[in-house]
Amino acid sequence: MQYVLRNDEILPRDLVHIDIEDRGYQFGDGVYEVIRFYDGKLFHIEEHLNRLLGSLSSIEIALPLPVDVMLSKLQELVETADYKEGKIYLQVTRGVHPRIHSFPEGVPPLLIAYCSEAKRNFEQLDNGIHAIAVPDDRWLRVNIKSLNLLPNTIAKQKAAERGAVEAIFVRNGIVTECSASNIYGVKDGSIYTHPSNHLILNGITRQVTKKLAKQANIPWIEAEFTLEDLQAMDEVFASNTIIEICPVLSVANVPIKDGKPGTVTRELQKLFSDKIARFREQ
Amino acid sequence: MQYVLRNDEILPRDLVHIDIEDRGYQFGDGVYEVIRFYDGKLFHIEEHLNRLLGSLSSIEIALPLPVDVMLSKLQELVETADYKEGKIYLQVTRGVHPRIHSFPEGVPPLLIAYCSEAKRNFEQLDNGIHAIAVPDDRWLRVNIKSLNLLPNTIAKQKAAERGAVEAIFVRNGIVTECSASNIYGVKDGSIYTHPSNHLILNGITRQVTKKLAKQANIPWIEAEFTLEDLQAMDEVFASNTIIEICPVLSVANVPIKDGKPGTVTRELQKLFSDKIARFREQ
Repeated sequence: MQYVLRNDEILPRDLVHIDIEDRGYQFGDGVYEVIRFYDGKLFHIEEHLNRLLGSLSSIEIALPLPVDVMLSKLQELVETADYKEGKIYLQVTRGVHPRIHSFPEGVPPLLIAYCSEAKRNFEQLDNGIHAIAVPDDRWLRVNIKSLNLLPNTIAKQKAAERGAVEAIFVRNGIVTECSASNIYGVKDGSIYTHPSNHLILNGITRQVTKKLAKQANIPWIEAEFTLEDLQAMDEVFASNTIIEICPVLSVANVPIKDGKPGTVTRELQKLFSDKIARFREQ
Repeated sequence: MQYVLRNDEILPRDLVHIDIEDRGYQFGDGVYEVIRFYDGKLFHIEEHLNRLLGSLSSIEIALPLPVDVMLSKLQELVETADYKEGKIYLQVTRGVHPRIHSFPEGVPPLLIAYCSEAKRNFEQLDNGIHAIAVPDDRWLRVNIKSLNLLPNTIAKQKAAERGAVEAIFVRNGIVTECSASNIYGVKDGSIYTHPSNHLILNGITRQVTKKLAKQANIPWIEAEFTLEDLQAMDEVFASNTIIEICPVLSVANVPIKDGKPGTVTRELQKLFSDKIARFREQ
């Protein structure tokens, strides 16, 4: 049986229903996180919780339970799963209220979290993915990990229709990120990626990748670059919690260098795998 | 008891629950309409249904029942209400599926609709409202009436906090529309409003206002203008299905002319009220 965390209660999935006037349903008025677990242990949980609190704070939603209680409930939730390697999807909405645009007062927010199985995708990590490019037509505060994801779903759908895994967003000629991941180029041994501002979501895996790059003495440069710049890089890779650090072999039908995963990408992937291995052993 | 239309079934509200994996809840992956009724009759229903079909088509969601069946079910829904003047809120989401960004195949979309009481707000129509101005940070396809409304709720909340009813969006210096209504200025007897493109939602009441202006020989000019232009107009008004055609007395703390509803606004309001009166008598 699948279980769901609803605020501080763990309930069978079938008993958890959302009201038609939940503001998440009518406005996308909420934020979310996707958290990986290995051997039943939550990976980079502190970073995810910090970002969740930041997202909530930015749109003035309170966490409906104390952080330490949530943490222990999430751990309990993982233990209800009959697999040890998976992910938690967690979202918090502003709660249920007759539909008005402004924030209703005195309404308790609603947290929903549940697990699903997710194994590391070694085939994809080894072989890489292809990415298309689409105009970045999203709102201007995508640093908030909100539920307003319609443009992301449309972009991802376009990628799928063209046989690609990701869609790279390009805003005013500048590469920002992908529909569900951050994007990086490697040129002459340095990593280039969009500055962490309101135009990208600062992924937890992006933050980890930055630390790994520092550890490996690989220069990390946050700068604006165009799609053509990206296509001319020596390597391109993408990252998020699920795809981890994944080689991108072509960008909008242009192969990157020889169309094979690059050495810097491989080095980062190895460091990331080592990190997971150490985490499992903790 | 309140009733809800779920696809083609009218059910007591308590029996209608949304799944945690409804794509409306996780992505805002759906579209909506708000339809007014007077004397139990749906006002401008054809225009609302046409726009709904347009919104659905633009994000490739199918209407889960034939239009004529939906129409008769909506009429039936109105008859379950114990009031004759109200509104229907209606939304269609892409349906329930384990969370993936791209559009899942073979998933039935979900229509939810319900009534609530809404009387004409004569106090507001007579006295007008005040509006603040905020940066238009929304996505670039707001002509789709989608559920991705977080920026609209934030803008409306800012208005409420400053004692205003509406927030005027300004993108790159140009006035587009408000958080939940269209906006117009009147200068030297002509109506100015933003062109109907991807940067505004072409409101049904906007479309009606355009016809009323034509009928009254008031020039209608779709053009870009700045916030300062708007503040210097002779009159300003806003429109949507609920506020109808409503005078805006001040814009970002600047009174419009003498801070009273203008004559063109009053003429349009009268024509609109006449239209409702004729509709009631039909």
